[in-house]
Amino acid sequence: MSPEKITSLQNPRVKQLVKLRERRERDAAGLFLVEGYREIRRALEKGVRPQEFYFCPEWFLGENEPALIEQARQAGAQLFELSKDAFAKVAYRERPDGLLAVAPQWKRQLEDLVLKPAPFLLVVESIEKPGNLGTILRSADAAGCDAVIVCDPVTDLFNPNVVRASTGVLFSVPVYVADSVTVHAWLKAKGIRTAATTPHTDNIYTSTDLRGPLAIVMGSEQYGLSEFWMKGADVLVRIPMAGQADSLNVAMATIITLFEAVRQRNG
Amino acid sequence: MSPEKITSLQNPRVKQLVKLRERRERDAAGLFLVEGYREIRRALEKGVRPQEFYFCPEWFLGENEPALIEQARQAGAQLFELSKDAFAKVAYRERPDGLLAVAPQWKRQLEDLVLKPAPFLLVVESIEKPGNLGTILRSADAAGCDAVIVCDPVTDLFNPNVVRASTGVLFSVPVYVADSVTVHAWLKAKGIRTAATTPHTDNIYTSTDLRGPLAIVMGSEQYGLSEFWMKGADVLVRIPMAGQADSLNVAMATIITLFEAVRQRNG
Repeated sequence: MSPEKITSLQNPRVKQLVKLRERRERDAAGLFLVEGYREIRRALEKGVRPQEFYFCPEWFLGENEPALIEQARQAGAQLFELSKDAFAKVAYRERPDGLLAVAPQWKRQLEDLVLKPAPFLLVVESIEKPGNLGTILRSADAAGCDAVIVCDPVTDLFNPNVVRASTGVLFSVPVYVADSVTVHAWLKAKGIRTAATTPHTDNIYTSTDLRGPLAIVMGSEQYGLSEFWMKGADVLVRIPMAGQADSLNVAMATIITLFEAVRQRNG
Repeated sequence: MSPEKITSLQNPRVKQLVKLRERRERDAAGLFLVEGYREIRRALEKGVRPQEFYFCPEWFLGENEPALIEQARQAGAQLFELSKDAFAKVAYRERPDGLLAVAPQWKRQLEDLVLKPAPFLLVVESIEKPGNLGTILRSADAAGCDAVIVCDPVTDLFNPNVVRASTGVLFSVPVYVADSVTVHAWLKAKGIRTAATTPHTDNIYTSTDLRGPLAIVMGSEQYGLSEFWMKGADVLVRIPMAGQADSLNVAMATIITLFEAVRQRNG
């Protein structure tokens, strides 16, 4: 069966795709957008089953697109071929590559997280910018974190910029969303030590033991760590900075801390 | 003397500001754009003397703008007040804050770089994305690098996205631009060891001595380290990665390597 063709910018599906950029629409529909070859490939590899798949050969950048479309079809996606204009309208990226999937959101429960003997977790608090959250997921993947726990989120996990900045790592790193109080109690109950990063301590992160069951806790962009975690964390650590006070953003501080933990844990 | 007011989108100055987004225009004029309160403040603090300063109170976000404008005027800038529409046209950012300066470009010569006893340098090769170069400058500032040397640049230092992503660190970290062969010879002559980052080595970066006179060398986004540096570097180092092969981008790999060097050099 050949895919339905859409050329009108007024087509209801085209309009719906544009609406899915808004969180309210995403949450109401329980759906989100996955745009781009790499991200869609990773989603399919990790078992994400898109409901719909939109493509436009005039935007294709490579030669592997038909195989990806076929893979999406086999995963159950309904296919739609868009005109160049229509795809430009639904594309979120400045330079679209002619591939856009609509997939169902999911929700993981913290109680379902099966822990290894010495878990290595990342907890992030109230991250505001989707790009930062995506980059942080990517860092957690590279560092080999067992899971990322997003506390009191400001941006939602399924924001198109999270998907993009994570380069699809959103589909491979287990991410959990919960409130800080619940997460703190859960970590305590599991015997996982919390190391929270803040400029307001004398403990240098490289001189602090980051081995064993550990959750690194990062505060938000604008406000840093909340009072709750400042008081509730087992240890506070600081990254010494040579330059200007705000020269590290939260994504940079996260990757530095994660890889120091990796160094200690491997050594 | 009150500033000249510009309301027409066809005003030659408005058109010139838009043109300065293009490298050819920047290089021909020897000028570049500095947009935003933080970036302009840092530029002024570091002695940059803008020739022109454009502002629009309707876009202001805070209350410190008049003081900054006065500071720019005292530094020799000619002032222009723009209408809301005109400023929206010249603004490079999606959310402008009503402040835009035009400053002269500069060029530093490698032979003028005065070295400390154990210099700590960062060398980056052919970085393509302005955002990455800006983030890398910011990381070098945070890590306390004495200087950044940009080899065979693809993006120019004065791209508006470099200024933005560096959050104005471009004005504080000494940055030099030269070709790889010259830089390599200069480092050799100065007795500075080069440690180049690549996935194609067994040396783990945390097990490699990164103390003493050191230049960390990073390859480009797409091609990694060139053959020249692969062969010419004193030591190759690798960051072990748990996740997907491409889970670290060049800016992330740079900050991880820099802060490991800081750890070793401080310990």
